[in-house]
Amino acid sequence: MQSIWWQVFDILGTSAFALSGALVAISRRMDLFGIFVLAAATAVGGGIVRDLMLGHTPPSAFRTTLYVWIIALSIVAVVLFIRYVNVSSRQRLVHQMESVYLVCDAIGLGSFTVTGTLMGFYYYPQYWVLNVTLGVLTAVGGGVVRDVLAGQIPGVLKKEIYATAALAGACILLSVHIYWGFTIYAASTLSFAFTVCLRLVAVRLHWNLPRVRRTTKSSIF
Amino acid sequence: MQSIWWQVFDILGTSAFALSGALVAISRRMDLFGIFVLAAATAVGGGIVRDLMLGHTPPSAFRTTLYVWIIALSIVAVVLFIRYVNVSSRQRLVHQMESVYLVCDAIGLGSFTVTGTLMGFYYYPQYWVLNVTLGVLTAVGGGVVRDVLAGQIPGVLKKEIYATAALAGACILLSVHIYWGFTIYAASTLSFAFTVCLRLVAVRLHWNLPRVRRTTKSSIF
Amino acid sequence: MQSIWWQVFDILGTSAFALSGALVAISRRMDLFGIFVLAAATAVGGGIVRDLMLGHTPPSAFRTTLYVWIIALSIVAVVLFIRYVNVSSRQRLVHQMESVYLVCDAIGLGSFTVTGTLMGFYYYPQYWVLNVTLGVLTAVGGGVVRDVLAGQIPGVLKKEIYATAALAGACILLSVHIYWGFTIYAASTLSFAFTVCLRLVAVRLHWNLPRVRRTTKSSIF
Repeated sequence: MQSIWWQVFDILGTSAFALSGALVAISRRMDLFGIFVLAAATAVGGGIVRDLMLGHTPPSAFRTTLYVWIIALSIVAVVLFIRYVNVSSRQRLVHQMESVYLVCDAIGLGSFTVTGTLMGFYYYPQYWVLNVTLGVLTAVGGGVVRDVLAGQIPGVLKKEIYATAALAGACILLSVHIYWGFTIYAASTLSFAFTVCLRLVAVRLHWNLPRVRRTTKSSIF
Repeated sequence: MQSIWWQVFDILGTSAFALSGALVAISRRMDLFGIFVLAAATAVGGGIVRDLMLGHTPPSAFRTTLYVWIIALSIVAVVLFIRYVNVSSRQRLVHQMESVYLVCDAIGLGSFTVTGTLMGFYYYPQYWVLNVTLGVLTAVGGGVVRDVLAGQIPGVLKKEIYATAALAGACILLSVHIYWGFTIYAASTLSFAFTVCLRLVAVRLHWNLPRVRRTTKSSIF
Repeated sequence: MQSIWWQVFDILGTSAFALSGALVAISRRMDLFGIFVLAAATAVGGGIVRDLMLGHTPPSAFRTTLYVWIIALSIVAVVLFIRYVNVSSRQRLVHQMESVYLVCDAIGLGSFTVTGTLMGFYYYPQYWVLNVTLGVLTAVGGGVVRDVLAGQIPGVLKKEIYATAALAGACILLSVHIYWGFTIYAASTLSFAFTVCLRLVAVRLHWNLPRVRRTTKSSIF
């Protein structure tokens, strides 16, 4: 029963991530192969890097055909939408679907953070640096690969509370499990809920992390 | 006897790939180290990523000195050509060699596709997603790394039937071996021939994969 | 006694690398998360790639909390400096610290080259291509990742004797150990000293590797 929910979250998140990759590829005038690569990189790239770091080869994403179908369906959906919805109804639809997209993306962020952190914890419970890194990497690594392939500076490094939500979620999961004695399941649920909520609140309130003001120019500093 | 041919194909392909890396590096005003890195990344980068995905460490490219010499020779050839051939004879030579380059590059594409797919198949015959991905990755991964290091969007994501030929070749290899009972050797030969021919025909006829027309601009869609 | 010195070199080098990552991130207007990612990628990225190539998972950088503190301290130092030192004293300070930075960076270059080469040699003494590559990769890989994430062509591919110093150091280490019978410790010290000196002399004398003059434009050559 519980695991079904996690699978639903995983599928929703993967779809949202694939969608964002496909849209970036289309905006960069890529062809069908490029659209597929960017959708796949965004959807499963973070998990592949996580698995390589753990020496878990071949990466899980290649052990099932599930993700291929999710990615293909996401691409079909976005291509059909762009080609066959006429402009007048499109703007209304985009407006309605923007919220759905943001919620699915936040669910993906939370779900991938939990998966990454837990997988690190099962392999190497003694290294918290590793586990937190894997949580964040699983959640945002795909988006970073997508942006690098699309020739732009990864958005997650520049603005918004996105990676920060994953970071907080991973820390919460480990803390409440190790120090407060929550079960893995309870800790995962708490971490997931916190990450999703923090992300959605941050989007709604336009929160950003601080930057450093730079007042001079110099070759090194 | 048979394996000699595969080795010849591998060497021809590696040279063509190294050449393309060296030329991109030169066009980006890189120094000798940069030229070597881009030539090496293009020539063996795809194979290294494939080996990492399979947990085959250290990657095969590091277990022999063969590739170092191929890459070094390719660089010497291109540098000598650029510096010592005078302009009038150069244009004729470039014109003549363009076809040779394209054929060698297509041979590399076919040979790397077969190597990647087969290597995945030997390790994990049960995962076709993995094997097809490895075939394509071995063939085009080096070019993607080259383009990212050169600060441009990977060309393979944007145009031409290149990765598509690798994809088709990998699918054919697995299909005719598993479903039609071809031997590995026959399936490899068929897949190699198909990939090379498809690539060369596509170049000659200027085939491209379709893109998606985008008629509106929007923050998300 | 000896190992304490290597640890000091490692910490100095990691700090200098983290500093350079943080400064690039700030110059690209990244937020706090981006600053941390670029500092970490520069400081430990090379070592992580080296460990993945060797199948040494999880990478060493994740097995200790030491690097997290070094990176965090470097970021705090640079942020405090940029925000609280007024402009008039800043220029003098920058000028004074530039030399310190360059020396620390050279020490990092030498120390990481030795670590990478030795680690490859312990695992696979028979593959010199691997060991030299790992020496160079450990030393310059982090900077390459930093530049790719910052959307610029890796500087190490374009100019200065930097990777070349690492390459020379790695070759010297292997040669004097294998052919001349130096102990590992003596060979490491020699290689370290040579790499650091070559780098500092190259900076002082503005040495660069040669490039290839390009006199024509053509689609392929």
